[in-house]
Amino acid sequence: MQKQTDIESALLRKYPEPVALVTTRSSAGRPNVMAVGWITFASDDPVMFVLGIDDEAYTYELIQETREFVVAFPHAGMARETLYAGTHHGHKIEKLSLAGLTTQDGVKVRAPLIADAVVNFECELVEITRPGNCPLIVGKVVAAHENTMPNLKRLLNTAKGYKLGGVSSNSES
Amino acid sequence: MQKQTDIESALLRKYPEPVALVTTRSSAGRPNVMAVGWITFASDDPVMFVLGIDDEAYTYELIQETREFVVAFPHAGMARETLYAGTHHGHKIEKLSLAGLTTQDGVKVRAPLIADAVVNFECELVEITRPGNCPLIVGKVVAAHENTMPNLKRLLNTAKGYKLGGVSSNSES
Repeated sequence: MQKQTDIESALLRKYPEPVALVTTRSSAGRPNVMAVGWITFASDDPVMFVLGIDDEAYTYELIQETREFVVAFPHAGMARETLYAGTHHGHKIEKLSLAGLTTQDGVKVRAPLIADAVVNFECELVEITRPGNCPLIVGKVVAAHENTMPNLKRLLNTAKGYKLGGVSSNSES
Repeated sequence: MQKQTDIESALLRKYPEPVALVTTRSSAGRPNVMAVGWITFASDDPVMFVLGIDDEAYTYELIQETREFVVAFPHAGMARETLYAGTHHGHKIEKLSLAGLTTQDGVKVRAPLIADAVVNFECELVEITRPGNCPLIVGKVVAAHENTMPNLKRLLNTAKGYKLGGVSSNSES
């Protein structure tokens, strides 16, 4: 049975949420990474992602500049690296190396792949809208890469305050 | 280490994905429900959801007609009901009762709440865009309701082919 509650309290029951690492690279060659929880698909042919980020993110500046980014899904053992990426600003520091993340080159965009992620999607910017208080970025997937190790579990955000962890499924159907 | 792969193969490594139940009610009073996997937040002040659904969904017709809907997160024991909602069309059948879902009235919109869900968010339509091959619907949360039972786990989509189940977290940080 449901009881009405305030929206903020209700949001405490939204977990687990996905978490992705989004990489970019400035025209001058400087790479960056951020953690994004607001991400889902926006189209399946072509495949597109939609992600919500904050106005102040260096990633937002670089996506507007280069119209490219990479979406990587970290594996369950990458909580520390993802937490670092999600809690530091990239304007003045080189977050990728400080987060302990290793990168590889993609094939279609200059933003780097996250070498240890479960999967990486190279994306080209389609559009930016602003229905509420932050930019919604839509990107078309133009190339994909997967970890050579099979059966890696994705990292999820399991509770308020960046409680990052793996999950074990107990599928029912 | 990453190896390039085709996009379709890479998508097999996107799981677990969220799953939500989205309810609507026609102007004539007929309720409907669908399962939506493409859903995330689009704003935090005010709180907004963005969801991607298919053009043929009766839900899409009803959202355009009434500009209202409810987003409910089913709990881990609701795999059967959610699978029914996700694999049947609502144009000709009364999916809510056939899925075995009990409803309650909300306070701001006429679309019904899912009584057994973890949490329900009443939403008013903000905008519909189409960056790819399906409508992206943005709704502003205008009221929220939570289950009187605490600690219910959310149902997730754990693998291709609607493998719905609960997950147990093993948080690392």
